[in-house]
Amino acid sequence: MKVLVINAGSSSLKYQLIDTENEYVIAKGICERIAIGGSVLCYKPTGKDPIEVKKDMKNHTDAVKMVLDALIAPDTGVIKSMSEIGAVGHRIVHGGERFSSSVLITDEIIKTIEELSELAPLHNPANLMGIRACKEIMPDVPMVGVFDTAFHQTMPPEAYLYGLSYDAYREMMIRRYGFHGTSHYYVSRRAIELLGKPEHETRIVTCHLGNGSSITAVKGGKSIDTSMGFTPLEGVPMGTRCGNIDPAIVMYLMDKKNWDIKKVKEYMNKKSGMLGISGVSSDFRDLSAASESGNERAKIAVDLFCYHVKKYIGAYSAAMNGLDAIVFTAGVGENDREVREKILAGLDFLGVDTDFELNRNCPRGKEAVITKPGSKVKVFVIPTDEEMVIARDTAALAKR
Amino acid sequence: MKVLVINAGSSSLKYQLIDTENEYVIAKGICERIAIGGSVLCYKPTGKDPIEVKKDMKNHTDAVKMVLDALIAPDTGVIKSMSEIGAVGHRIVHGGERFSSSVLITDEIIKTIEELSELAPLHNPANLMGIRACKEIMPDVPMVGVFDTAFHQTMPPEAYLYGLSYDAYREMMIRRYGFHGTSHYYVSRRAIELLGKPEHETRIVTCHLGNGSSITAVKGGKSIDTSMGFTPLEGVPMGTRCGNIDPAIVMYLMDKKNWDIKKVKEYMNKKSGMLGISGVSSDFRDLSAASESGNERAKIAVDLFCYHVKKYIGAYSAAMNGLDAIVFTAGVGENDREVREKILAGLDFLGVDTDFELNRNCPRGKEAVITKPGSKVKVFVIPTDEEMVIARDTAALAKR
Repeated sequence: MKVLVINAGSSSLKYQLIDTENEYVIAKGICERIAIGGSVLCYKPTGKDPIEVKKDMKNHTDAVKMVLDALIAPDTGVIKSMSEIGAVGHRIVHGGERFSSSVLITDEIIKTIEELSELAPLHNPANLMGIRACKEIMPDVPMVGVFDTAFHQTMPPEAYLYGLSYDAYREMMIRRYGFHGTSHYYVSRRAIELLGKPEHETRIVTCHLGNGSSITAVKGGKSIDTSMGFTPLEGVPMGTRCGNIDPAIVMYLMDKKNWDIKKVKEYMNKKSGMLGISGVSSDFRDLSAASESGNERAKIAVDLFCYHVKKYIGAYSAAMNGLDAIVFTAGVGENDREVREKILAGLDFLGVDTDFELNRNCPRGKEAVITKPGSKVKVFVIPTDEEMVIARDTAALAKR
Repeated sequence: MKVLVINAGSSSLKYQLIDTENEYVIAKGICERIAIGGSVLCYKPTGKDPIEVKKDMKNHTDAVKMVLDALIAPDTGVIKSMSEIGAVGHRIVHGGERFSSSVLITDEIIKTIEELSELAPLHNPANLMGIRACKEIMPDVPMVGVFDTAFHQTMPPEAYLYGLSYDAYREMMIRRYGFHGTSHYYVSRRAIELLGKPEHETRIVTCHLGNGSSITAVKGGKSIDTSMGFTPLEGVPMGTRCGNIDPAIVMYLMDKKNWDIKKVKEYMNKKSGMLGISGVSSDFRDLSAASESGNERAKIAVDLFCYHVKKYIGAYSAAMNGLDAIVFTAGVGENDREVREKILAGLDFLGVDTDFELNRNCPRGKEAVITKPGSKVKVFVIPTDEEMVIARDTAALAKR
């Protein structure tokens, strides 16, 4: 089945057309600057040159129309007509406690996703714009929602509850939800295959390290804990996000600086993390360059990041009473050898025998094992593919 | 030397008179309800019946006077005159980055402690009241300040820095300081003696578990990381404190409930933790009883607590590349066998071979090893004694 995968942001829309029979990406691209002027569509049919179309998109419906026009264009298109698209899969950020797996989108489901917008005020409404646009243009094509939070719904209470009053959970839905679930699911499945032992015996820590980063403990194929929490602000320090801090600091900053909620939020989400510590950049490539040319704060930023990831690996090993594999994925995890090296150095106590030479020579964007043959714990680099998971789930549910 | 150890709170003053030659506690007690009416002194000479004196104390000077009167009383006293007291040691909560060890108190030191009150607005001013009272009454007796934060001043930047903008550290002194330092120091010293291997080779996790709880990684005798942070709110969930949460929750609560800073602070410090989750009590004995009679939330609270302590043990093992000993101390750590059992279960991957039978029969308030003879990692129960550390440091500095 040909599945159109949609990842809608507030002013952008990423898409991929995937043939799920052979898991082939037929075309992909992105619409940017939707509804804010200067909109542009980027369209890339696999194996051919990318095409850019500058044309105003008033809303997400315009964007979806342009994507479909590009896909069926007589010269450069990849399908003959819209009817070849068997289903549409939508990435949805927050499924709350309501969704523990992907779901066929109905009017009722749309309403539920809307209700969950309270928990993801920036993301769910944007995702819904994508859903509504597709519904308008392709009313008869089945649509499936795939949630970033779903994979983490298997966490036990001691992992998902905070040490707050129980009312915070019961009345305000404040708990750990976790994010990047589709990615953690994808790479942990693959790691289980690579380990070649029964799924229920496997204990894996998956490190999704990118501009946003999260670490997950996957035991017997199920997420039992994850570093992002109620929002994607929690966990390790990230590109521009602070990650874990003493909650009293929030109050201290507001008091001391006379900041309102909006200002503190912006400070913690946009001006902290690698950018805030280094004063240089949120990008690990820039940090590495700065660090090499003697910038001490850039070095500290990367050290801090790696130290926190390392501590999560230890913490989750304790949560699972041991470890079979560590997986690195996403932009930084797949490509930054120095970061992987710093994280893996000094983990021999766990039975991790990293081949640092192999790590340094690990090709970008390719699957690899970077531990020595006898290593008790395997370390894998596995490029993530959230779109493929969305396409698979969508095809499976659409066929029913 | 006879040292008077003072731990002054805002309306209380705990004291011990210790002979540092033989480390004998001559007498101890507490003044309560100072300056708020209904004040009472409790005085307990070792080996004799405690005495309670109800008498108004307008301020901490009155309290110190009453303590001295009790110590030198002809019938029930333990010394002949005030001149027998060679030095006074004060517990001080926050030493910031300024104090990495105990210090002889001068006017300049008092000024610095005053300046650090910004970081500990509830504690340092109270500690200063104790210092000033003693200074007034015993102007010629040397006084020493012993800081809760001092032991943690050996943490490296990747442990003490948060993922916030560097300005937060440089301009606002926002960093991890850690607390309970005197206790972590005391029990880790003792554990190093018990391990009987060279100090620089030792890797110990000390768990100070009480109404307030903190975990410390002690490598080569030095604190390299600790769970409490900028304030004692961070770390594991505690009696009434929430511990680590997604910082975004602070903003969410303020928004959603329309709470001001004071209200959120109170919620997170007084109504959360074991009390908030269970709805029953902040006391682990009550939680255990409630849990046994079927209260599910009481059980979840204890499980949550133990799970978080367990994760810190794993995280700090990763920070030190392995582990030689785990130490339990303070009210809960020394006495709650069930909590220790839940924390230690499933840590065999680290080389912890707990003797659960031994743990269950471990006498209260006594030092004990609760691992099997061959266990790679030893687990010790070590009653803490912060006052003895204060007395030792005080005598040492006063003698110079």
